Amino acid sequence: MTLIECVPNFSEGRRQDVMDAIVDGIKAGGNVIVLDVEADQSHNRMVVTMVGEPHEVLSAMKAGAKKAVELIDLNQHHGEHPRIGAVDVVPFVPLFNATMEQCSNLAMEFGKWMWEELHVPVYLYAETARIPERKRLPNIRKGEFEGLRVCIGDPDRCPDIGEPVIHPTAGATAVGARNFLIAFNLYLNTQDKSIADRIAKAVRESSGGLTNVQAKGMFIEQKGLAQVSMNILDFSKTPLYRVTEMVKMEAEKYGVKVVEGELIGLMPLGATLNSLSYYLQIPKLTAEQILDVAVLSRLAENESEQ
Amino acid sequence: MTLIECVPNFSEGRRQDVMDAIVDGIKAGGNVIVLDVEADQSHNRMVVTMVGEPHEVLSAMKAGAKKAVELIDLNQHHGEHPRIGAVDVVPFVPLFNATMEQCSNLAMEFGKWMWEELHVPVYLYAETARIPERKRLPNIRKGEFEGLRVCIGDPDRCPDIGEPVIHPTAGATAVGARNFLIAFNLYLNTQDKSIADRIAKAVRESSGGLTNVQAKGMFIEQKGLAQVSMNILDFSKTPLYRVTEMVKMEAEKYGVKVVEGELIGLMPLGATLNSLSYYLQIPKLTAEQILDVAVLSRLAENESEQ
Repeated sequence: MTLIECVPNFSEGRRQDVMDAIVDGIKAGGNVIVLDVEADQSHNRMVVTMVGEPHEVLSAMKAGAKKAVELIDLNQHHGEHPRIGAVDVVPFVPLFNATMEQCSNLAMEFGKWMWEELHVPVYLYAETARIPERKRLPNIRKGEFEGLRVCIGDPDRCPDIGEPVIHPTAGATAVGARNFLIAFNLYLNTQDKSIADRIAKAVRESSGGLTNVQAKGMFIEQKGLAQVSMNILDFSKTPLYRVTEMVKMEAEKYGVKVVEGELIGLMPLGATLNSLSYYLQIPKLTAEQILDVAVLSRLAENESEQ
Repeated sequence: MTLIECVPNFSEGRRQDVMDAIVDGIKAGGNVIVLDVEADQSHNRMVVTMVGEPHEVLSAMKAGAKKAVELIDLNQHHGEHPRIGAVDVVPFVPLFNATMEQCSNLAMEFGKWMWEELHVPVYLYAETARIPERKRLPNIRKGEFEGLRVCIGDPDRCPDIGEPVIHPTAGATAVGARNFLIAFNLYLNTQDKSIADRIAKAVRESSGGLTNVQAKGMFIEQKGLAQVSMNILDFSKTPLYRVTEMVKMEAEKYGVKVVEGELIGLMPLGATLNSLSYYLQIPKLTAEQILDVAVLSRLAENESEQ
């Protein structure tokens, strides 16, 4: 058995019927387990987490993308989160018996299909990037849909797959293979986005902070609070506790406090254990020490069949 | 499928051949999953965690007890942990589709067997206690093996099952049903056991501390450190983080620090999540947000069979 994860980000987080149509499309399109659907009105964005065999994930992803391109018009789309496409980002993640290369091949297959079938040009990012600058999404998203529409013909902005012609309503899509990523946000007890910006700058890799951390400041309308929005690219090297405690430490400088944490999507069991072992000062906390009745009941069934 | 857990405590934590014989006996005696074996030289005690269908757990437990009574002589046994028997305590825990009543019935069945087959008198404790004072183990263990040998005939010390005659080498056994219990210890950077005693007194239920917490001070020879040794009887009401932070707070009074945490046996997934959600300030962290590849691979197998 090979398992990969796919975590597409769609530019719709408000119209429930559109979100339902995309998720239903995914479920009908392939034999995958949809683990999580997270929609955010302020970001106006939906993140779907699915898991399955590579070919099942590919066909489910195609069905979901088709629906999104059909139903989302970026000319009408506004939200806090930067985006270039209706199907904004499609990462393929090796999960179980899968390699990064396998996921990169899958990403390219999906990218070709996006262009040939839906006429959406594709940028290859993360581990699948052909151009080093495109490893990082912010470089691809520069100017967003509105800016890219104008400059997609520029030599340094040409898509990796497809002609330099933006899709009039669905924009472009970033596709690639990457490691498992934890999306984790911390809200501050201030409305001042510039404080969140400065904390983000202090904790992220690109400006002198922690490796494996991407961060930016945001203002979240719904809560009326500033937020440090983060991606942790390798939780085994840079655990969540270190990121959280560093945000708290930097927040001290401005006399603000963290008021709430927010996990977007899923977190691997290993990530909960390496952070909890820090706080409870347990030198090593392993999955074998964690009792999960759902797992046990399956184990016991297998045992009794033997 | 019904699953119960059984966590027998045997009074042997030093002689590897004896410990192996007991664990092998358990495995051969019934179709159970032995999740964990934890032996401590200083306590001179071994804790085995097994899970299975009720009748399988019962027969595995009988086989383990038989071995222990055969191989352990309490007259030769010394250790930090109080004990009355070779098979010191046998708790049955409802885990999955099981009730407390079911576990109490199983406890009584096992208790009768201990007396009839092995001539070890039995005290019923926890939820199976017939006498309110015997709900708590320390009351049953008062005077330990050496003391009980003398006073087992006293009206208030008579066993619940069997005659008031102690087994000459295997003592007596406490048997009962209880909720899932987390055994969690915190080491202090001091050799002074009296500080651990005073912290234990401050944090435990019986003397003005947290409900669902039992605690005592110990000196652990191997580490050369004092330890606050605790049982958390209901982690959903009294999470580990609260216990840990309260120990740290009380330790401040003596100018000592917690240097290490230690989990004995297992911890349910829910207990990791309700503590981590405190530290990361995530309002609610559920099992659905945790990605466990071992679980996923099984889920995916089931899906593909449908």
